[in-house]
Amino acid sequence: MYRKLKNSELDRKSVEEFKTAKKTPLIIILDNIRSLNNIGSVFRSADAFLIKKIYLCGITATPPHKDIQKTALGATDTVDWEYQKDTLTLIKDLKSQNIKIVSIEQAEHATMLNDFNPEPDQTYAIVFGNEVKGVQQDVVSESDTVIEIPQYGSKHSLNISVSAGVVVWDLFCKFKVN
Amino acid sequence: MYRKLKNSELDRKSVEEFKTAKKTPLIIILDNIRSLNNIGSVFRSADAFLIKKIYLCGITATPPHKDIQKTALGATDTVDWEYQKDTLTLIKDLKSQNIKIVSIEQAEHATMLNDFNPEPDQTYAIVFGNEVKGVQQDVVSESDTVIEIPQYGSKHSLNISVSAGVVVWDLFCKFKVN
Repeated sequence: MYRKLKNSELDRKSVEEFKTAKKTPLIIILDNIRSLNNIGSVFRSADAFLIKKIYLCGITATPPHKDIQKTALGATDTVDWEYQKDTLTLIKDLKSQNIKIVSIEQAEHATMLNDFNPEPDQTYAIVFGNEVKGVQQDVVSESDTVIEIPQYGSKHSLNISVSAGVVVWDLFCKFKVN
Repeated sequence: MYRKLKNSELDRKSVEEFKTAKKTPLIIILDNIRSLNNIGSVFRSADAFLIKKIYLCGITATPPHKDIQKTALGATDTVDWEYQKDTLTLIKDLKSQNIKIVSIEQAEHATMLNDFNPEPDQTYAIVFGNEVKGVQQDVVSESDTVIEIPQYGSKHSLNISVSAGVVVWDLFCKFKVN
């Protein structure tokens, strides 16, 4: 009954189709991400869920880079991206464009991801922080909302590319229902 | 307002507390996963969402291994795991224990993840396949359900550790509501 589909049977967009497709109203900001694997993997998730743009900030490496490419598998050609040196300057600029800033962090008064409901017709920029230090406190303080992925185990945080996948999937589904 | 929490302020379980905690009725089966990073990352997600057990099958490497440890960050000490050479034999055995087998694949008649609702009090074993080949057709054919993560971009699939995070988060939330 369950026959696996061949790649040729999957309905996937060309680069041109991706560029002109209606996007999910989400922007991803990578705040000082060290791992090239993580950057590439975020590009791939952003491609899958039609993310508007990725901002690569601070020490976050930019394409073209073979170790980003290895996990991105071409998604750097479809998803719009831009390098910005300073994350705080960027988020102030995005706020002035009526984009809401959401940091993914464990913080006082954070909203749990399952409790967060995006407003329809509102664009959100989601900030994911460094593998060890997380999102900078200055950026967290300047955010409109802080979302925490509730976690119940012994470890303190998910891998950053997993966090990005979980948050993007969760919000993508909520936007579809809205 | 949004003050980041220190690690010491996070309410995390000890290894002993994890072992005795009530688990989410999910088992993860890794069917011939090549990447040690991916294996480690799945352990970390399984720790976060209180997964019952991980089965490492076929060529999937087992702990202790420094490259698994680098991404698992200790989650191999909390999450129960076992090696099984043959995935098909394993899933037949699990089915005989009334566990439902769900393969994550792009297949004819697959259910989209957003449309899938787990039955309360039912344990599911979720199969994630090789980075290139996906879940073996034999295992897909023997599954009770095939779930597909709908994807709208130019690429064919998400990174496997991202897929696992997305599916586990999605089902975890649905179990909580049920």
